[in-house]
Amino acid sequence: MDKQRIVIALGGNALGENLPEQMAAVKKTARAIADLIEAGHEVVIAHGNGPQVGMIQKAMTQLTRAEPEKYIPCPLSVCVAMSQGYIGYDLQNALREELLDRGINKGVATVLTQVEVDPSDPAFAHPTKPIGAFMTREEADRMVAERGYDVVEDAGRGWRRVVASPRPRDIVEIDTIRALVDTDHVVVACGGGGIPVFRTAGHHLKGAAAVIDKDFAACLLARQLSADALIILTAVEKVAIHFGKSDQQWLDSLTPDEARQYMAAGEFAPGSMLPKVEAAVEFAESAPGRRALITLLEKAADGIAGRTGTVVRTPDGR
Amino acid sequence: MDKQRIVIALGGNALGENLPEQMAAVKKTARAIADLIEAGHEVVIAHGNGPQVGMIQKAMTQLTRAEPEKYIPCPLSVCVAMSQGYIGYDLQNALREELLDRGINKGVATVLTQVEVDPSDPAFAHPTKPIGAFMTREEADRMVAERGYDVVEDAGRGWRRVVASPRPRDIVEIDTIRALVDTDHVVVACGGGGIPVFRTAGHHLKGAAAVIDKDFAACLLARQLSADALIILTAVEKVAIHFGKSDQQWLDSLTPDEARQYMAAGEFAPGSMLPKVEAAVEFAESAPGRRALITLLEKAADGIAGRTGTVVRTPDGR
Repeated sequence: MDKQRIVIALGGNALGENLPEQMAAVKKTARAIADLIEAGHEVVIAHGNGPQVGMIQKAMTQLTRAEPEKYIPCPLSVCVAMSQGYIGYDLQNALREELLDRGINKGVATVLTQVEVDPSDPAFAHPTKPIGAFMTREEADRMVAERGYDVVEDAGRGWRRVVASPRPRDIVEIDTIRALVDTDHVVVACGGGGIPVFRTAGHHLKGAAAVIDKDFAACLLARQLSADALIILTAVEKVAIHFGKSDQQWLDSLTPDEARQYMAAGEFAPGSMLPKVEAAVEFAESAPGRRALITLLEKAADGIAGRTGTVVRTPDGR
Repeated sequence: MDKQRIVIALGGNALGENLPEQMAAVKKTARAIADLIEAGHEVVIAHGNGPQVGMIQKAMTQLTRAEPEKYIPCPLSVCVAMSQGYIGYDLQNALREELLDRGINKGVATVLTQVEVDPSDPAFAHPTKPIGAFMTREEADRMVAERGYDVVEDAGRGWRRVVASPRPRDIVEIDTIRALVDTDHVVVACGGGGIPVFRTAGHHLKGAAAVIDKDFAACLLARQLSADALIILTAVEKVAIHFGKSDQQWLDSLTPDEARQYMAAGEFAPGSMLPKVEAAVEFAESAPGRRALITLLEKAADGIAGRTGTVVRTPDGR
């Protein structure tokens, strides 16, 4: 197969809950990604950060509790920036090492990435994504009063902050990422879906209290890089309809129209397979010849070679 | 003056102790750096992270205390990686905004940077750099037993971990930084002196319990990028001899030989002006025509234009 430019969306859950788990997870991830690079493809990696930004937020909350006179609560955007450093460090090292073990000498780089979101995105009217540590009722009330947080009660476990999950609109550092891809780097970018920012008056970017879905961020990254393929990694080898039922059926391929019919019929779980299929459809329809692949991490290279996974593309490849 | 390639070493203390201080500090920093870029120079920024990595380490320590079954103490190298995200996010945004306000449309990028140190560096035999939160005697004893920490008692305030401050040997991501400088980016790199790593068997890089001086890291960065000038920012406009005494004398310039004589006479404070002068001398002697400048942040552009600061260079400019 010809050399392709591929963007991979890697789940934050697959990267582990803490440091030792992450160290082990990135090795497995690096092997799968190196298979694609060894096959001659250009690879850019976007990743989630759910457990990792959760860890950092809890730590920063503990610090604010311990020294409230010195440290204000850490904005979510800043925690995402820290998580890009935390994850990028381990991921780029594991990749670098795996490539060198295979005799491939390529630069591997992590680019701190901001992703613009729209303040009028309807998601901001209905924040749904729980983040950070559990709070007591009193703490929650104070955060609502002092910082304007949205909070929800999680039955029996206390209160949590919820934030919006708006669609990504623009990748601020796209030219940086492109310059590195064009000079033969393997790039880690848009960590955690990107540091969410609003564009305010003039050129100012302001951190947004939001979480960007990494599959949508990866889709935008793939579009802006004119990638040939978007690989969305998940916990199953293929997309299924009637998932978990007696008539479950794995799908080898999906057209955007078929996908829309299944979505309308409620076949894909919100917050799980649904955003992956939505991002796959958006990418497949964004330009002629583009395809999205949904599969397991360890099947990524097989999937790109056409041997497994669910491929989403237009019927005529256009 | 002709366009020059300039590496700037920016102090972590100048970036503030917490988030609001950092937000204010980066604006002032951005103005000074934008003056150099507006004058036509290529600029790469290395920065310290003392207060910032201290904040992150304290937060991660609090998290480990709160949930010891889930979170192990966070290695220093990982805290440095997080601090590169934390500082880079604010710094690159302030720079981007200041440049756009002046009508300059340039990519500004933060590169997650690892810097190799040598396990046989004599600094490892004498760790001297205190880091992280104060501990009780019992906590300190446990860290020594369980994790091999070196600790010192700080009179009356408790115990603290100390780590080595070895010399930087190699910048792992130097090709990435060069690719971005060559494509007209303003690059933030080597944050906190770089994530300290050892090169172990094969290609493996392992996090080192160390803190790399940002002035030496910036010097190495300037050498590896073949920069024309290294600007080391500090709290005084010029270097002085007999500092703070009645016969104090500000210096407009220094040759490496003069600097060595003053250093031998104990003119420069260890941990303060001494490493700055050492780094300046090393850069000035590294190739013909290179000069180092030691001055205030707000005097950087004036200093490069030859109007102030202390310039360190060889007598014949060779």
